[in-house]
Amino acid sequence: MIRTHQAGTLRPEHAGQQVTLAGWVARRRDHGGVVFIDLRDSSGSAQVVFREEDDAHGLRSEYCVKVVGEVRVRPEGNENPDIPTGGIEVVASEVEVLSEAAPLPFPIEGASGVSEEARLKYRYLDIRRQQLGDALRIRSKATYLVNEVMNERGFVYVETPNLTRSTPEGARDFLVPVRLQPGNWYALPQSPQLFKQLLMVAGLERYYQLTKCFRDEDLRADRQPEFTQIDIEMSFVDQDDVMELGEALIGRVWKETLGYELPSPLPRMTYADAMARFGSDKPDLRFGCELVDLTDYFKDTTFRVFQNEYVGAVVMPGGASQTRKELDGWQEWAKSRGARGLAYVLVQEDGFGGPVAKNLSEAETAGLRAATGAEVGDAIFFAAGARHASRELLGAARLEIGRRKQLIDESQWSFLWVVDAPMFEDDGEGGWTAVHHPFTGPKPEWSDNFQDHPGEALAYAYDMVCNGMEIGGGSIRIHRAEMQQRVFDVLGISKEEAESKFGFLLEAFKYGPPPHGGIAYGWDRICMLLAGGESIRDVIAFPKTASGFDPLTAAPTPITPAQRKEAGVDATPKA
Amino acid sequence: MIRTHQAGTLRPEHAGQQVTLAGWVARRRDHGGVVFIDLRDSSGSAQVVFREEDDAHGLRSEYCVKVVGEVRVRPEGNENPDIPTGGIEVVASEVEVLSEAAPLPFPIEGASGVSEEARLKYRYLDIRRQQLGDALRIRSKATYLVNEVMNERGFVYVETPNLTRSTPEGARDFLVPVRLQPGNWYALPQSPQLFKQLLMVAGLERYYQLTKCFRDEDLRADRQPEFTQIDIEMSFVDQDDVMELGEALIGRVWKETLGYELPSPLPRMTYADAMARFGSDKPDLRFGCELVDLTDYFKDTTFRVFQNEYVGAVVMPGGASQTRKELDGWQEWAKSRGARGLAYVLVQEDGFGGPVAKNLSEAETAGLRAATGAEVGDAIFFAAGARHASRELLGAARLEIGRRKQLIDESQWSFLWVVDAPMFEDDGEGGWTAVHHPFTGPKPEWSDNFQDHPGEALAYAYDMVCNGMEIGGGSIRIHRAEMQQRVFDVLGISKEEAESKFGFLLEAFKYGPPPHGGIAYGWDRICMLLAGGESIRDVIAFPKTASGFDPLTAAPTPITPAQRKEAGVDATPKA
Repeated sequence: MIRTHQAGTLRPEHAGQQVTLAGWVARRRDHGGVVFIDLRDSSGSAQVVFREEDDAHGLRSEYCVKVVGEVRVRPEGNENPDIPTGGIEVVASEVEVLSEAAPLPFPIEGASGVSEEARLKYRYLDIRRQQLGDALRIRSKATYLVNEVMNERGFVYVETPNLTRSTPEGARDFLVPVRLQPGNWYALPQSPQLFKQLLMVAGLERYYQLTKCFRDEDLRADRQPEFTQIDIEMSFVDQDDVMELGEALIGRVWKETLGYELPSPLPRMTYADAMARFGSDKPDLRFGCELVDLTDYFKDTTFRVFQNEYVGAVVMPGGASQTRKELDGWQEWAKSRGARGLAYVLVQEDGFGGPVAKNLSEAETAGLRAATGAEVGDAIFFAAGARHASRELLGAARLEIGRRKQLIDESQWSFLWVVDAPMFEDDGEGGWTAVHHPFTGPKPEWSDNFQDHPGEALAYAYDMVCNGMEIGGGSIRIHRAEMQQRVFDVLGISKEEAESKFGFLLEAFKYGPPPHGGIAYGWDRICMLLAGGESIRDVIAFPKTASGFDPLTAAPTPITPAQRKEAGVDATPKA
Repeated sequence: MIRTHQAGTLRPEHAGQQVTLAGWVARRRDHGGVVFIDLRDSSGSAQVVFREEDDAHGLRSEYCVKVVGEVRVRPEGNENPDIPTGGIEVVASEVEVLSEAAPLPFPIEGASGVSEEARLKYRYLDIRRQQLGDALRIRSKATYLVNEVMNERGFVYVETPNLTRSTPEGARDFLVPVRLQPGNWYALPQSPQLFKQLLMVAGLERYYQLTKCFRDEDLRADRQPEFTQIDIEMSFVDQDDVMELGEALIGRVWKETLGYELPSPLPRMTYADAMARFGSDKPDLRFGCELVDLTDYFKDTTFRVFQNEYVGAVVMPGGASQTRKELDGWQEWAKSRGARGLAYVLVQEDGFGGPVAKNLSEAETAGLRAATGAEVGDAIFFAAGARHASRELLGAARLEIGRRKQLIDESQWSFLWVVDAPMFEDDGEGGWTAVHHPFTGPKPEWSDNFQDHPGEALAYAYDMVCNGMEIGGGSIRIHRAEMQQRVFDVLGISKEEAESKFGFLLEAFKYGPPPHGGIAYGWDRICMLLAGGESIRDVIAFPKTASGFDPLTAAPTPITPAQRKEAGVDATPKA
């Protein structure tokens, strides 16, 4: 090693020792002949004193330097209690510039407001900044904790392929041409789902992997074309076993990185309750403002808008004092979500204000405060229409209320499981789609007859939710060919399509597949929560922009005709 | 959990307990009304006894079953000391078939000689076989040990991108079209080299990752288009620091998986010695037969073949008794390696046999045994010509001799470092190529003048070799732009090419890059050694054949015109 000590580890007990440090010039202060620099390395920083101005002459910001000097206790009154090395300084006797730094595109310390574009282009400088560097270190620590828990519990770490089978039905697959088989293509995996189920057929019983997944998705905020998941699968288990493991895993991570102890067991909420009370399958429980079902309340209404399958409301505390512009803003907000608008009344001392109030009967207004729990000064937002969509609109309005009124305690953690999701949902074209994926089993009580009531059948699935975000999702899988066929029938998946997409899994299921289930945790999102980031880009060393562009390397790029030819992009595959 | 115990964990102390097991029917024996089955799960197996033949009626090989029964000590004389559960059996009271198995394409137990094609197609059955299942478990254990060591030593685990920049010069890159930017392509990384160096510029100081790398290589035995490496980079280090870490890492893995203690420190050999003595940059030290340099010995020879830059020999013990056919076989072997043949003499009681002997002078034959150490009964193989190529031929002959004469003690481990490799080698067209890669630094004594003696300059590089295989390789990197430019000049890399391939790294090196170095270990090969496999396919759950085909999923496949259009394969990129 070029150095003897890390700068951030020096303490008064090192006083008198000759040390060699290596790191970066973080800050420089000239005090009449004496120069002080903060020397930063990965452990922190220490103050270095140059008694001869000349010695420090050439040292500029972010130069990489080696310093030999003696540790001494700082003169009384000069201590800095805010940093761990604040009790000492190093009096330099030798300095060597290991490499120089050009003027920086942005300062390492202090400045906020640096554009994301610049941060991504000079990512190596961005990582020198404490926040991002620390985020990557937290991510690393959390990753190790996952390995530790899974090792303790006897899981086998298995790497599954990244070059896999492309299928015509595999929308959003990234494709990869194969030079050795011109005209043939691999696909990058959207998840190792099929392979982990094969590993259960293989008898490994307990599999896990920290693995990259790939999805060529449409532009969406905070998505990356490649993302990481903790992928887990277990044999001979029930739902409770997978959930218990998940709580142990996530519990260890939160405890060891943040000192936060998860409640044990975590609360569970059914999907039906989550939708009814919070208008979301991933409710944020850090504040109230629950939805109120007013369908019954308005069952005899003459107001045409409320003559509907479902009428519900959410109360905005203090919402009655919103300006006209703010109230109009809610209409825009609702329209941007595809709704026609957001009906509301304002609860005033002397009755109800807002355009909807006049459409309500006397009886309806009389009981409205009691029915919704609204107080004078609040606003009541309504949604009426199809049950699911209306609840989702109210759920989104609830979150927006929470943000605007700062009702969310950001220091709090809200973990829960959402269970008993439906197996299927209406695809809007008279058919059904899988809410999770087609290998998700029905709850035991639905195993014989889910096909007869696809709209009601419940899946043996579970999502872990934290602060209103889904951080993990899984299910007990189907392991019997006969049941799998019934699911395909409900989904309208033909024998040919099933064969093309999952034929090798169906074949495997002929050879004594064990009952099994698993879960996958969204690792980027979890690390973002741990690091207190606002975007998953805050915990990814080299992320891409929403359009998949990397400002650092300028990927992706066009390819040359020679590359195209070599990769066999335009070759006709041999039959 | 469906079961209360794992079958392989049952011992006489469980006698009298009611247990529930779940696993696979491994073997079945009918003994006049009583049926015995071996129930296998991931922990091992246990014997289950059915007293009523009817209860076991439907149980066939590889059915997945659940059994309830009572553990009892086996009747005296029926114990099986060869298996850990051999002292007990489980007397079944209930059995449930969890899933049935169709007739198997090959038996799980016993049969060797199953074709590789069948093993890959039914990989989930192959993994049920003890050898492959154990190999995957050893790999998992070794992976955890790596994490443990790196964590203890303060390394930060960072995930680098898999969707990276393609460059026209990047031969063997897998390419990936990007739907959101039609006509633009990512490349899959052949290694995270550039990113890990950026992480050093970023100040992380100690990085590691277990990561997939991708190379669209020509057909070669035992290569995979995707492979795994343990990737490591460190700042402020010297060669010895990286080597010390490597010994600790590999040492822990060998000790904890195989109980083998690596010598500490590992022996080091210079590249020059390795080539001179073993004709290889990755010598297998488990046997002798070192090369003999006879250049001086034959310096005045009249035998035209030996009038050459280099003449060397390797002795084959007992080789004089080879048949004519065997001796001709060596000529074929040499030709298949691109040599013209392999000159030899046979050391006989009464002189030298073989076609070359008559070309040697009396003086040359008189001293030949002393010069080569050959004994009566041996064969001496010669190579004459360019030094490097001749040594490589003799090195290969040496390995072949070791195999044919079974000179290699397969129970032994031979670890060493090969250091001081040349920086450059002749590209055969009057120029130079990098022996490692263009970021490899010169040894300190060559830092100022390597460009003046490219054929002699030594790299600050080190390879870890085990049993004649390179299992890791690394170097201290160049971190000064000026030195990097001199290397590019020697390699004939133009400013444009350097900019296109590594422009972002060169830019990063403007901002105070630290001195740094690292290493990458070939994880598949290491796991193969640990598991005693013969191919890296023996330690990969879902490998591909040498042509990149996966018999299990039938990847790669042609794609449809719709897929092609969606992926933007034929789009013209926007300027």
